[in-house]
Amino acid sequence: MPFTPARPDPSQPAVRINLLSDTQTKPTPAMRAAMAAADVGDEQVGDDPTVNALCDRVAELLGKEAAVFMPSGTMCNVAGLLAHCRPGDEILAHRTAHILSREGGTHAALGGFQITGLDGADGKFTPDALRAALHPRTRYEAAQTVVSVEQTANIGGGTIWSKSDLEAIVTIARDRGLATHMDGARLMNACVATGIGASRMSDGWDSVWIDFSKGLGAPIGAVLAGTRDYIDAVWRWKQGLGGSMRQAGIVAAACIHALDHHVERLADDHANAHALAHGLGQIDGIAVQQPETNLVFFDPAGAGISGAAMVKALRAKGVLLATMDGRIRACTHLDVSADMIEETLGLIRDVVRAV
Amino acid sequence: MPFTPARPDPSQPAVRINLLSDTQTKPTPAMRAAMAAADVGDEQVGDDPTVNALCDRVAELLGKEAAVFMPSGTMCNVAGLLAHCRPGDEILAHRTAHILSREGGTHAALGGFQITGLDGADGKFTPDALRAALHPRTRYEAAQTVVSVEQTANIGGGTIWSKSDLEAIVTIARDRGLATHMDGARLMNACVATGIGASRMSDGWDSVWIDFSKGLGAPIGAVLAGTRDYIDAVWRWKQGLGGSMRQAGIVAAACIHALDHHVERLADDHANAHALAHGLGQIDGIAVQQPETNLVFFDPAGAGISGAAMVKALRAKGVLLATMDGRIRACTHLDVSADMIEETLGLIRDVVRAV
Amino acid sequence: MPFTPARPDPSQPAVRINLLSDTQTKPTPAMRAAMAAADVGDEQVGDDPTVNALCDRVAELLGKEAAVFMPSGTMCNVAGLLAHCRPGDEILAHRTAHILSREGGTHAALGGFQITGLDGADGKFTPDALRAALHPRTRYEAAQTVVSVEQTANIGGGTIWSKSDLEAIVTIARDRGLATHMDGARLMNACVATGIGASRMSDGWDSVWIDFSKGLGAPIGAVLAGTRDYIDAVWRWKQGLGGSMRQAGIVAAACIHALDHHVERLADDHANAHALAHGLGQIDGIAVQQPETNLVFFDPAGAGISGAAMVKALRAKGVLLATMDGRIRACTHLDVSADMIEETLGLIRDVVRAV
Amino acid sequence: MPFTPARPDPSQPAVRINLLSDTQTKPTPAMRAAMAAADVGDEQVGDDPTVNALCDRVAELLGKEAAVFMPSGTMCNVAGLLAHCRPGDEILAHRTAHILSREGGTHAALGGFQITGLDGADGKFTPDALRAALHPRTRYEAAQTVVSVEQTANIGGGTIWSKSDLEAIVTIARDRGLATHMDGARLMNACVATGIGASRMSDGWDSVWIDFSKGLGAPIGAVLAGTRDYIDAVWRWKQGLGGSMRQAGIVAAACIHALDHHVERLADDHANAHALAHGLGQIDGIAVQQPETNLVFFDPAGAGISGAAMVKALRAKGVLLATMDGRIRACTHLDVSADMIEETLGLIRDVVRAV
Repeated sequence: MPFTPARPDPSQPAVRINLLSDTQTKPTPAMRAAMAAADVGDEQVGDDPTVNALCDRVAELLGKEAAVFMPSGTMCNVAGLLAHCRPGDEILAHRTAHILSREGGTHAALGGFQITGLDGADGKFTPDALRAALHPRTRYEAAQTVVSVEQTANIGGGTIWSKSDLEAIVTIARDRGLATHMDGARLMNACVATGIGASRMSDGWDSVWIDFSKGLGAPIGAVLAGTRDYIDAVWRWKQGLGGSMRQAGIVAAACIHALDHHVERLADDHANAHALAHGLGQIDGIAVQQPETNLVFFDPAGAGISGAAMVKALRAKGVLLATMDGRIRACTHLDVSADMIEETLGLIRDVVRAV
Repeated sequence: MPFTPARPDPSQPAVRINLLSDTQTKPTPAMRAAMAAADVGDEQVGDDPTVNALCDRVAELLGKEAAVFMPSGTMCNVAGLLAHCRPGDEILAHRTAHILSREGGTHAALGGFQITGLDGADGKFTPDALRAALHPRTRYEAAQTVVSVEQTANIGGGTIWSKSDLEAIVTIARDRGLATHMDGARLMNACVATGIGASRMSDGWDSVWIDFSKGLGAPIGAVLAGTRDYIDAVWRWKQGLGGSMRQAGIVAAACIHALDHHVERLADDHANAHALAHGLGQIDGIAVQQPETNLVFFDPAGAGISGAAMVKALRAKGVLLATMDGRIRACTHLDVSADMIEETLGLIRDVVRAV
Repeated sequence: MPFTPARPDPSQPAVRINLLSDTQTKPTPAMRAAMAAADVGDEQVGDDPTVNALCDRVAELLGKEAAVFMPSGTMCNVAGLLAHCRPGDEILAHRTAHILSREGGTHAALGGFQITGLDGADGKFTPDALRAALHPRTRYEAAQTVVSVEQTANIGGGTIWSKSDLEAIVTIARDRGLATHMDGARLMNACVATGIGASRMSDGWDSVWIDFSKGLGAPIGAVLAGTRDYIDAVWRWKQGLGGSMRQAGIVAAACIHALDHHVERLADDHANAHALAHGLGQIDGIAVQQPETNLVFFDPAGAGISGAAMVKALRAKGVLLATMDGRIRACTHLDVSADMIEETLGLIRDVVRAV
Repeated sequence: MPFTPARPDPSQPAVRINLLSDTQTKPTPAMRAAMAAADVGDEQVGDDPTVNALCDRVAELLGKEAAVFMPSGTMCNVAGLLAHCRPGDEILAHRTAHILSREGGTHAALGGFQITGLDGADGKFTPDALRAALHPRTRYEAAQTVVSVEQTANIGGGTIWSKSDLEAIVTIARDRGLATHMDGARLMNACVATGIGASRMSDGWDSVWIDFSKGLGAPIGAVLAGTRDYIDAVWRWKQGLGGSMRQAGIVAAACIHALDHHVERLADDHANAHALAHGLGQIDGIAVQQPETNLVFFDPAGAGISGAAMVKALRAKGVLLATMDGRIRACTHLDVSADMIEETLGLIRDVVRAV
């Protein structure tokens, strides 16, 4: 059963502090109330007022003409790239980008696209690296069609693509006729951390999406934005992939609630991440990457314990974390308080002492 | 914009009687309460207790080892067939089956499958017709891999595949090494109408799914069931298609509520459909197909008015219907009462009189 | 081993009369000499003078801007449709068309295209049947993109699409924005039989190809023609499918020889086919379809012997035939003389007498 | 027209010395005679004795059960990988491998495969690099299915994968359940250069092919070998790709002739390549990679002239070369003599002097 997720192990202690992912957040009572009261219709035929309101709002937030609601961020990437590309096209992205490293080969399988993984520090390639990877169109080489960035770069450490690099990439792409796609799973974290608005951050990008089931704390949903023609093309694939739902206003109401109440507070998650990184940095033998947003990557190997062993030891104490790409990733979010960070640091110190 | 659904037209009167589809049902207050109170977790990593409970319950209902939650019935078909087939495979289905006529070519596009449309009355092919369409495996012909039925046959008139035909098809399929797939979008209607249990109706079928956002009245969701190995293979595609969600227990709670409260009442929808058909049959010039479940197909051409004109005239009076495959389809459901049927009949009589 | 062709069975008598297919013709001494003397270069980089000359000549013959050499007619269909369509597109063709019934699901597998099989007598659909199958563009239906005919219609009986039907189909297609594709495997037979030139027969068709390894008697090759832009798009797929060769002028020289020497003589094959059909028609119990070109379909069931048994009995006497789609198909060609037809008729009479 | 190859430019002087590629060789008189005399049949139905003989001979040469004839080496890669993989599978190869860098994205387009480009010197990855790139099977990552090598590594410099690295890769692949594919476009060069037999070189590799239209000097053809079951699966795709031909014995006869007469003489090409490299190494400012087989990569930038300018200057003197991946590639073959190498060196020295 390599594909079926394992159900919770009842022999494990309850999770008290969940640093696994910002996807783990549970809806707040206020968010639940918003869902229960949502005005709904059949979104597949355009009749859900809450979904429509959400799409309009995200389109405006991102400075695009139109937007479409999706059951997941992955479907934003899948349908979004299907609408940009044809079989045999090549998509350029960082080697650690979600579309290449975490989506199970779906872009090749469903779309026939080859993704080329570019190198670069902290999950980001430079504009020069992009330029070096481009080639003219011939029948011997895949047709380069899209350049994609992931804001923030998850496996890179929750790092932020700078506005100037985003602009430089857009300039290169336009010059070479490539479409630009921004996987904005944690775009709002980048916006809050930098003070740059989402619309400005997305400026010039042909397709951009934000995820509501990560730091924004909604149970389900992501919204992809672009030109009206592009979103029309995406609708064909939303339908074909099985992403058209019915009274989706129920869950869209939680997304609207999140836009109203859960954006500015991402700063708290960033503060907690910094506190965690600061504390980890003071423990001998733990190498920690300085966080830019809500993700903290660290490696306890220098303290004589592997990441996997550390994760296991903490799980036994009710703290949930995981290794990713060889390091431990801790993710702060709505359900993680400053006290929990302090407690986690204490437990990590205990584990290291006991090595 | 051929693909984007149109938003509601504010110049139209409000819809008072919605016979468009059973997908239009809105969640009841009790169902909303169930959603608001749902115990949730991250379903993508196996941690949503409500989703898990729903899957277990549907697996048992359908007599299968395992089941998986999906955002739509279409995704059950897409992921379900991706798990059965390889590119170049041929799927045999009725010419009007949803997978062939209503899913936008997605099985060819995403899976590389050729669907062969078999003929047959009322949306169903006979076991003999299936037998006649089979051929040995050669490199000149597509590899026949799956036979699929749609229970009930929507465009066929909401008709029911008989238990004996289902058994005969399974026998042929096993004999020839084909997998069997049941698109059970309205399987529960067939079960309630015939008194045959869902598990018996699904017996011998390798993959079966039911939809919760049709007659069962939930806002979002469908569940696909099969062997444990099959469902494991489906999980790969659920992930790749973007169907893995997060705190999906919110909407799964509505599905559980539907199983508890909205199955037996499908009989009311069937009674309303019969009443509508009976009334229509008494209007000179209207040809009506005798309903077997909750769908009523009729053609007013004999009364001197086209289906499209009739639909338009009724819409102006607040009654929503649509033409499908050349006739008018009326669909009864949770939000349609016996009184509404009477009122609709009266309005149709008015329209015919005014011709 | 369902896919590997069987090697010759040494226990069988030698084949003296080969009516299996016009693909069985062996190059004549003059054709061999032309190949041996061919001026060649690397066709993949545009340097083969004989391939270039052949392409120019076929483009002119078919009245198109450009043409490309292919190792087979199947590749003309595969690359030709890949250049017309995108995944999820629908191609309309007769139910017995080679692309649907004899190419192993490759258009779904490699291109993601759904082929819809239209009904119609003698392997041909009427313009009205085409019109009835068309629908507007929606996200629920595959995107209809190409209408394809096979000239002559092989399984239909080697029948000829009339110039007026071809024109009517082109008119409908242009009106609805569909591309038109002519699988001209035996187009030259149709031209010789009707006296209509190849260029006139192809007029208005976006892509047309002719096969040199059928009645024209060359060992390898087919040439696909269309606009310069279209052929450019085809080149991408020729390369990707593995159809770019090197000193292909060797085999292209045989194709040029065939154009010079083997076109008008197709009339002999047609005369032989008529003679065969005439003789068969005089045998009690044999139902024979009146041939229009070089294919004769007949069914000996009325004479008390199945097609398969007849084929087997004739094979034992050194005559090679096969059943196709339930009947026996006899194919006349370069290596079949009038005497052989007489001898075959005698042997068939013997078989029937012995029943 | 980015895809259509350009025809010869009549304003250019004739090519006297063709170092562009070993694909440029023209058939010798003896090879032409062998083709003219070939015993042929319809290879698509198993009846071509010359094709059958060639396949048997290559199967034995490579130590495999069975083999199949193809119109090109690219089709060996395309059909060969289609038979190994399913959509969403990942193929591991060197970053410069022909399947990734020179086949136009066809593996993604036609098969749905993601190719991961591994790093490594001289066009080869180490067994350790392979091991580091492997991961367990999850639904988040493409399914790693095949590891592929190109013997010799063209863009790597015509370099030879050592027998010990090939063995180590096979061991890793077996241990992890991956199939092994060898693109043996120039495998015979590696065998002649090392003295290791083709069968030993291929030992443990699931699929291996050799090209006859490169150094072996035949006009058309490549042969792919593997187990009987594997080759059966390949036949399905040979048919579907349009690679089944008819009297292919014409060109297969040239391949048999090449096996008889053109294998051992590859040593001459290697000697010429060494002579060229030695001469280039003595020219100030030219950086040359020491050749292992028949390819010589060099860069004249240190002499104050770009590769492109050098290629242009030589073309004006009747010597054909090209740049590849930033350097000039010179390829020795059947139509290149030792005298031509001397003359070329003289011309290069002239060009450098004139800078």
